[in-house]
Amino acid sequence: MAKTALIVGAGSGLSASIARLLAKEGYQIALAARRIEKLTQLSSEIAAVSFAADASKPEEVNQLFIDVENKLNTPTVVVYNPSFRVRGPLIDLDPGEVAKTLEVTAYGGFLVAQAATKRMLQQGGGAIFFTGASASIKGYPQSAPFAMGKFALRGFAQSIARELAPKNIHVAHFVIDGAIRSAERLDPVDNPDSTLDPDAIAQTYLNILNQPRSAWTWEVELRPWVERF
Amino acid sequence: MAKTALIVGAGSGLSASIARLLAKEGYQIALAARRIEKLTQLSSEIAAVSFAADASKPEEVNQLFIDVENKLNTPTVVVYNPSFRVRGPLIDLDPGEVAKTLEVTAYGGFLVAQAATKRMLQQGGGAIFFTGASASIKGYPQSAPFAMGKFALRGFAQSIARELAPKNIHVAHFVIDGAIRSAERLDPVDNPDSTLDPDAIAQTYLNILNQPRSAWTWEVELRPWVERF
Amino acid sequence: MAKTALIVGAGSGLSASIARLLAKEGYQIALAARRIEKLTQLSSEIAAVSFAADASKPEEVNQLFIDVENKLNTPTVVVYNPSFRVRGPLIDLDPGEVAKTLEVTAYGGFLVAQAATKRMLQQGGGAIFFTGASASIKGYPQSAPFAMGKFALRGFAQSIARELAPKNIHVAHFVIDGAIRSAERLDPVDNPDSTLDPDAIAQTYLNILNQPRSAWTWEVELRPWVERF
Amino acid sequence: MAKTALIVGAGSGLSASIARLLAKEGYQIALAARRIEKLTQLSSEIAAVSFAADASKPEEVNQLFIDVENKLNTPTVVVYNPSFRVRGPLIDLDPGEVAKTLEVTAYGGFLVAQAATKRMLQQGGGAIFFTGASASIKGYPQSAPFAMGKFALRGFAQSIARELAPKNIHVAHFVIDGAIRSAERLDPVDNPDSTLDPDAIAQTYLNILNQPRSAWTWEVELRPWVERF
Repeated sequence: MAKTALIVGAGSGLSASIARLLAKEGYQIALAARRIEKLTQLSSEIAAVSFAADASKPEEVNQLFIDVENKLNTPTVVVYNPSFRVRGPLIDLDPGEVAKTLEVTAYGGFLVAQAATKRMLQQGGGAIFFTGASASIKGYPQSAPFAMGKFALRGFAQSIARELAPKNIHVAHFVIDGAIRSAERLDPVDNPDSTLDPDAIAQTYLNILNQPRSAWTWEVELRPWVERF
Repeated sequence: MAKTALIVGAGSGLSASIARLLAKEGYQIALAARRIEKLTQLSSEIAAVSFAADASKPEEVNQLFIDVENKLNTPTVVVYNPSFRVRGPLIDLDPGEVAKTLEVTAYGGFLVAQAATKRMLQQGGGAIFFTGASASIKGYPQSAPFAMGKFALRGFAQSIARELAPKNIHVAHFVIDGAIRSAERLDPVDNPDSTLDPDAIAQTYLNILNQPRSAWTWEVELRPWVERF
Repeated sequence: MAKTALIVGAGSGLSASIARLLAKEGYQIALAARRIEKLTQLSSEIAAVSFAADASKPEEVNQLFIDVENKLNTPTVVVYNPSFRVRGPLIDLDPGEVAKTLEVTAYGGFLVAQAATKRMLQQGGGAIFFTGASASIKGYPQSAPFAMGKFALRGFAQSIARELAPKNIHVAHFVIDGAIRSAERLDPVDNPDSTLDPDAIAQTYLNILNQPRSAWTWEVELRPWVERF
Repeated sequence: MAKTALIVGAGSGLSASIARLLAKEGYQIALAARRIEKLTQLSSEIAAVSFAADASKPEEVNQLFIDVENKLNTPTVVVYNPSFRVRGPLIDLDPGEVAKTLEVTAYGGFLVAQAATKRMLQQGGGAIFFTGASASIKGYPQSAPFAMGKFALRGFAQSIARELAPKNIHVAHFVIDGAIRSAERLDPVDNPDSTLDPDAIAQTYLNILNQPRSAWTWEVELRPWVERF
């Protein structure tokens, strides 16, 4: 029976690229997002099943995993992509939006990882991947909430990587250090490959997923060749 | 007129040590905690004023700063100490407690810093200090929520340090890398100075506070001589 | 015509694994080591050409690249593996051995990268990979010289990654965080995959090499699932 | 009898500031540099003794410590400041100058720390401080040799901090993240405090030196308020 991959926060270019690549590798794909209307095309393209869930709500996350198990199977791979960001000078930030940034970017990662881990421990292993950003390792000015959320997600991922690796669960954190190419954001004509091709990123997710456990990576960063870092 | 220092999360040994040292340096001290009963002795010892406030509630933080201004003065130094922690295997963690860890450890830091910054910008400067822990820079197994909270606080502090330094607000983050000495936790007889003396930590807070702006520190760590790191 | 890969410090298990994998991918392999007697078997196995060179000597490194060009081709991939280490309490270290640690572990990396870069810039691109260790990012007690050398190599690699990426040269640094499996060091029977399989490490080198330049990694770490980190 | 402080690499603005401040604190000051002519004025100003020594030569470092002991006393504090740097594109770097960068910036730090530690272990304690730079933690393009040297020094300092702290020797590393003010480099009139005042830096060295061993810092960074980081 095919293995199942659950991609949370599906919809963005990166999620779609990961979904397509894992589908090609033979995985059954479960896509989860708050609004699944936007997943219709991708779902039909790769025969994926879409699930509506707000990843920052404990009960919705629990239901999501139950539904995925019922319709497909227990996922052996879970990818957590959601993030929310609000920018601006510290004094102009809306506390509610800051709270939301933490909930979507970091707390949802905990909820999803917890639900996944409960199942993976029973199955003897699995993989849980988190998508980070430049802000995961550097707190940029005028972007304090996103730094909070992404630093938190990284600290969480590192902690559970240490806890779960010896239990055969591969936790990895991907620092996406640059802008991802999309229909809205194409490379400038005179600067090819100056944005991150989501298919190229997805390939590195797959490579890390395929690592034998004698040589696991917990963190890797990716950026375009011309991106300053 | 005396300058005012606001210490949030007062009550612990470190908060009390900082309060005593700043009082000795001539600061008027405002102490803030959810429960101020425990502050009675310290308040009377150093002529401090206590304020009841839950630092993770926007409206309480706003009221706190209004009250401090009315009773004392606009603080030129604010120290954020609160943290909450829950430990254990990932699958055993209570989502509510994880949320609380983020709120108390990190989100409250945002609220307090935002309220402080609004005032410090008007006054032309100030200092905002955050108390971190070993978990601020390393995600330990079985302690994922605390890593989330402390990483988040560090990312936040780094971001606003970059934003606010050029506006003459000194933001610093202290990595307390070891256990703090207390009535409950004394040094073993055969291992003197193996815990962090809160008075010694406080001295480093004061030294960083007194740095001229031509040579500011944003981060410093502290540990006992015999602590492994 | 086949592309050429130059592996410096060949001989160890990791070098051999990288050589075998790149040979399988169609690369012509150049092996360089101070003593090439030990390379005889590997050379004949994968039809590689061996070159004797001390990577810490400028003139030998220059000659090496001339010889590789003459016998094979200008390398498009160069891997720098050599390291030397001396351990012990600081006061017992022999200054000559410390100097040698720096020369072999770090200075040779500069020499090789410089010679490679001169050629790669003319050819419009290439890849230069450095093998690091746990000591690249953490200075362990009783191992100060190795920390010096490996930190230096990492700083060097990071600097030239920033300089050379926009010139289409992919510089990457691999943090090998654990012991590599070898004939002398097998996994304990009751702890499978507790050492790093050099073939598994090599696969990650290949994956990083194959990254399109829109999504390059400059650093990745690898460790066995049961390795504490 | 007065305690003795040895400052290696004396001559620069920072060394002079540290020397003056420690002299004021009652230390007898030993200044060491390759050329001591430039130390004449400082020596007479603070009644320091100057010693000619090339810190990258084992025999000269050994003789330096013998001479300091004979003329003054065994130092309880040793500060290592020397560095050498060469900048430019990788392919233009002179191998001899790169080697010199490593020797002066890092290897000399090993030699001085080893000689100091031999004596401090016998005396039951001491302090060894290293001066780092932005390049200690970030490898800038076009500055690979300096990154090598400063990364190496940091790795070394971290390793011996871990080894020597439990032996009552306080090892600390100072990341000077900006340009130091000097007669040649004054602050722009419209940008006060935009360079690091060496007296302000020196004060932080003194504060770290005075830390009780229950709360030691191993690393601290310093930068002007308007310096981007």
